[in-house]
Amino acid sequence: MSKYSIILGNLGNTCDRFLSSGYKDELPKETLIRQASEIDGVEGVELVGTWDVSMDTVDTIGGLLEKYGLRCASIIPDHFSQKRWGRGTLSAKDPDIRNQALDYTFECVEMARRLGCDTLNIWPGQDGYDYVLQSHLVRERNWLMENIRKVAESAPDIKFALEYKPKEPRNFSFMARASDTLLLAKETGLDNVGVCIDTGHAFVAGENVAESVVILQEYGRKLFHMHFNDNYGAWDDDMIVGSVHFPLYVETLFWLKETNYDGWFSMDQYPYREDGQGALRESVLFLQMLENKLTAEVMEQIRDLVTTGDAVKSQRWLRETFFK
Amino acid sequence: MSKYSIILGNLGNTCDRFLSSGYKDELPKETLIRQASEIDGVEGVELVGTWDVSMDTVDTIGGLLEKYGLRCASIIPDHFSQKRWGRGTLSAKDPDIRNQALDYTFECVEMARRLGCDTLNIWPGQDGYDYVLQSHLVRERNWLMENIRKVAESAPDIKFALEYKPKEPRNFSFMARASDTLLLAKETGLDNVGVCIDTGHAFVAGENVAESVVILQEYGRKLFHMHFNDNYGAWDDDMIVGSVHFPLYVETLFWLKETNYDGWFSMDQYPYREDGQGALRESVLFLQMLENKLTAEVMEQIRDLVTTGDAVKSQRWLRETFFK
Amino acid sequence: MSKYSIILGNLGNTCDRFLSSGYKDELPKETLIRQASEIDGVEGVELVGTWDVSMDTVDTIGGLLEKYGLRCASIIPDHFSQKRWGRGTLSAKDPDIRNQALDYTFECVEMARRLGCDTLNIWPGQDGYDYVLQSHLVRERNWLMENIRKVAESAPDIKFALEYKPKEPRNFSFMARASDTLLLAKETGLDNVGVCIDTGHAFVAGENVAESVVILQEYGRKLFHMHFNDNYGAWDDDMIVGSVHFPLYVETLFWLKETNYDGWFSMDQYPYREDGQGALRESVLFLQMLENKLTAEVMEQIRDLVTTGDAVKSQRWLRETFFK
Amino acid sequence: MSKYSIILGNLGNTCDRFLSSGYKDELPKETLIRQASEIDGVEGVELVGTWDVSMDTVDTIGGLLEKYGLRCASIIPDHFSQKRWGRGTLSAKDPDIRNQALDYTFECVEMARRLGCDTLNIWPGQDGYDYVLQSHLVRERNWLMENIRKVAESAPDIKFALEYKPKEPRNFSFMARASDTLLLAKETGLDNVGVCIDTGHAFVAGENVAESVVILQEYGRKLFHMHFNDNYGAWDDDMIVGSVHFPLYVETLFWLKETNYDGWFSMDQYPYREDGQGALRESVLFLQMLENKLTAEVMEQIRDLVTTGDAVKSQRWLRETFFK
Repeated sequence: MSKYSIILGNLGNTCDRFLSSGYKDELPKETLIRQASEIDGVEGVELVGTWDVSMDTVDTIGGLLEKYGLRCASIIPDHFSQKRWGRGTLSAKDPDIRNQALDYTFECVEMARRLGCDTLNIWPGQDGYDYVLQSHLVRERNWLMENIRKVAESAPDIKFALEYKPKEPRNFSFMARASDTLLLAKETGLDNVGVCIDTGHAFVAGENVAESVVILQEYGRKLFHMHFNDNYGAWDDDMIVGSVHFPLYVETLFWLKETNYDGWFSMDQYPYREDGQGALRESVLFLQMLENKLTAEVMEQIRDLVTTGDAVKSQRWLRETFFK
Repeated sequence: MSKYSIILGNLGNTCDRFLSSGYKDELPKETLIRQASEIDGVEGVELVGTWDVSMDTVDTIGGLLEKYGLRCASIIPDHFSQKRWGRGTLSAKDPDIRNQALDYTFECVEMARRLGCDTLNIWPGQDGYDYVLQSHLVRERNWLMENIRKVAESAPDIKFALEYKPKEPRNFSFMARASDTLLLAKETGLDNVGVCIDTGHAFVAGENVAESVVILQEYGRKLFHMHFNDNYGAWDDDMIVGSVHFPLYVETLFWLKETNYDGWFSMDQYPYREDGQGALRESVLFLQMLENKLTAEVMEQIRDLVTTGDAVKSQRWLRETFFK
Repeated sequence: MSKYSIILGNLGNTCDRFLSSGYKDELPKETLIRQASEIDGVEGVELVGTWDVSMDTVDTIGGLLEKYGLRCASIIPDHFSQKRWGRGTLSAKDPDIRNQALDYTFECVEMARRLGCDTLNIWPGQDGYDYVLQSHLVRERNWLMENIRKVAESAPDIKFALEYKPKEPRNFSFMARASDTLLLAKETGLDNVGVCIDTGHAFVAGENVAESVVILQEYGRKLFHMHFNDNYGAWDDDMIVGSVHFPLYVETLFWLKETNYDGWFSMDQYPYREDGQGALRESVLFLQMLENKLTAEVMEQIRDLVTTGDAVKSQRWLRETFFK
Repeated sequence: MSKYSIILGNLGNTCDRFLSSGYKDELPKETLIRQASEIDGVEGVELVGTWDVSMDTVDTIGGLLEKYGLRCASIIPDHFSQKRWGRGTLSAKDPDIRNQALDYTFECVEMARRLGCDTLNIWPGQDGYDYVLQSHLVRERNWLMENIRKVAESAPDIKFALEYKPKEPRNFSFMARASDTLLLAKETGLDNVGVCIDTGHAFVAGENVAESVVILQEYGRKLFHMHFNDNYGAWDDDMIVGSVHFPLYVETLFWLKETNYDGWFSMDQYPYREDGQGALRESVLFLQMLENKLTAEVMEQIRDLVTTGDAVKSQRWLRETFFK
């Protein structure tokens, strides 16, 4: 069984552009951490900068994680929830903002070290553009790459998982798809820069997640991290895993195992109106149900199926193997 | 268990715009009919005009159906596969084409009668437009409605199931969505005009099929026919049922039963590169597996779930009820 | 030239789920109203409940509108930005919430009267569902219709424009598409219930806006209101009109004029990172540029084009008529 | 002004899966070539293998091109329109098919040489998969790359432009997006392997074409070829350029020029029901209209716009610069 983690904020209050105060009430961090620890199989949490952790609170949070027996799976620097980042962070047109973003990212490296965490999950959500003729595409994409290189070069003890997403909050993100982001990671020339797949982001990008896994692993073992959720295909709905799709998770887990992915299985949801702990627990249980099926014998069966490529046979196998 | 049927041509050769000769070989009609009869649970076939049946062949085909113990679930008039229909049929700009289309549709009524079939499934795929400023939207939509009224009025013994699809082969179809088509059906003022849902078309339209079922049934029991298939959400991929999605079929079957739909469950796929019989059989088996679960007790459980509306609870119930 | 208005809040601060404090600063209401009045051609504003107007502030706001020479084009009741509405308003499962929503909507009628405004633009964004098996689709859709009927029946002096949108903030809205919403409007049996098209919502629904205009007008002159914006087709990006698409706005304006739409042309954008006034002004200028072209002679040319349906000719005409 | 070409078959008959005989009549090759030569500004044609050219006809076709003063801009090997390619070509599971595909591609190299053409535009449309668990993703992707390397290595005088497309005819293509395909091109380690952008394929992939241009040019000047058309964003509708979108073509042409792209501007459309020559001519005229505007002065203005990034200013500039 893989290591499971959750993004801590998924247990808390979540808002959208219409209900900015959020659909639920704010809960104390300790409550969130305790709730995370109560989900069977969850060993770690991901902490979002500003929302969950800062230089001021890092030691307190570290203490709480220890108290509840959880590891810090990654820190997700806050490159998205402050007004100053509204027009970009590491690729912002304003050099002062770029520097602030750089400084802040260095700070996150420091926080990770203090928490004994070896991964920064970088999601530069504000880096991109909304309109045509709004971005100097050459220069800004380059700033993004160079700044990631600067941080990663200085912190060889930390892995940098670059999380892609086609859009939102910008209409076009610079890190939009698996391969775009892999190219950027490779361009840094650094071994500690790789990619994070968020299954929902990949669906929105029109990717088959299993193939994105394979691309990243085949071009130099660059899959550093996995975020799991589900959606209807057109938007990052951040739903319970398995609530929309089914067979593609089987294929995804097969290729994760087949390509020897050994990172976290981290839940990343926005249960706006649901019980957060329950929603996360369901995702974990769904994935564990699938993982439990992937015995050596079943792995061999799947190897046969993908070698043969008979869709009828594969569908029958899926039905007979998974459904009552 | 519901009545199952298949569209006969699904067993034969299928082509696309790049491989116009098709991915497989042509098979004799009798072979197709025999293959249909061999799928457990399949009691009927749908016949596509021109491809499967015409005034000249209707009696021969009728004899073959009898020989293999199959009923004709519907005739789908060929409003799409002839050069003369390229710019529309019942709503074509050319009055002569409109008349030809009308005459041909009357002919299909006659064929249905000879086959003891009570349903025409009308899919006017060529009726619509590709570019802006290409259609006189008022006039052409009206011609479509009037011509359907003319045929339906003259044949009260036949049900007319209007099948909607947002696009393909036109970029915009006049019968595009469940509600558009229901409006048109109601505008005819005739009880024997209703709607056919093709699950894949509904996905492409962004509809939740279960809700489309409810809309059609609640506004006057207008759901006349069901076509089943699956796709990735953006295009009419016409795949094996359950090969992409899972929970939404449960909800769909629930509401079909709850609103007392008693029509056919008809398979409509394009197994371009698959064994046609195998692909259709898998779809039937998948749906029967779900139907078998929907006992009186389970129906009551689902009534509770939709009344409560707790997504976490629903997802857990789905997992525990359907998965091994 | 048509009457132009803007949604007042478009000039203010706008947030999203990642930056809940918003991308800009909050401005006093008087500043927003003054800015609206400064956009050439803008004669009215739409006020969003809670955000812009309440029973306590309605007279003050009314005074400000008068001071700056603006009319209230509509009130948009706040059915979306309060925690109590998180799981629905007029169709909520909780009867107490339904009653609160009803009371609040009556209040908005009263506000409209005090402002000399004849339209409520109803956008029940929270009414819908996120997951399968989460909604009692029959009952909840019916509550929505019945409650709209109750309010509209009691206020024959007010027009109720129902604004549809396929998703967001719910994954599925009950008022999702033009025809769904028209069906609901007709089901009320009331002349003062109609539909509002938001161009961006229609794009996301896969509709050709011009055809939605025609459908609504042909089935009983039910187009009550128009919201304008642009997007990339997959999400409600709420961008400057014309920033993505061009020819379809020509077709839309043609059919609005041809079907004698005489309501407002209202701008509805979310200029998260742009100067609000500038973004709205650009939209108004773009639409006025198109409207100015639609002389009697040009209208006749377009009638010819849509009657002939020659896409090559239409494209040439568009290029030669609009581009330098 | 750039060099313009068209894909020859765009002038001929086009079919789809419903009307496999096509919407028009077949015309002699000489008629198509003559028609191409009649479009002002068109200097070249692209020839599709099997459909337009084979070892048997290459000299005749070469003679006709000479007669009408046209160059062969590229050969597009037929990797898609024969039954034997139905389950893939250069990546097919069957080694015999892979060998046949390889042999055939070498043949196309030979044809190109005989026609004095320096580019093979490789679109392996059948290489991919439809269902989950249908492809051995590691092995098959690798075969594709290795086979392209084999051909390209043996023909350093020929440029290989790999054309990507997310789907159709397979539900998932191996060459799906700009960056995926760039990665594959780079993996060959050969200078004569690059990428072809088809604007419509890029829209379907959710890409901003201008950014795809920049990515390909910045990572080693790998943009070898351009196909132009338009669509509604969700499918490869292959429409007249500018019939849906406008501003993004301005941005695309700007970045093509700014990054010194000096290849062909080739039209790739499927005018199913339109006059082919007229449809292609309109596309050429639309692009030439835009190119004519891109004077040194205007290029400088755009450099300012993309450096500043003020969307309101950019939209105003677009309106004032391009519209009457």
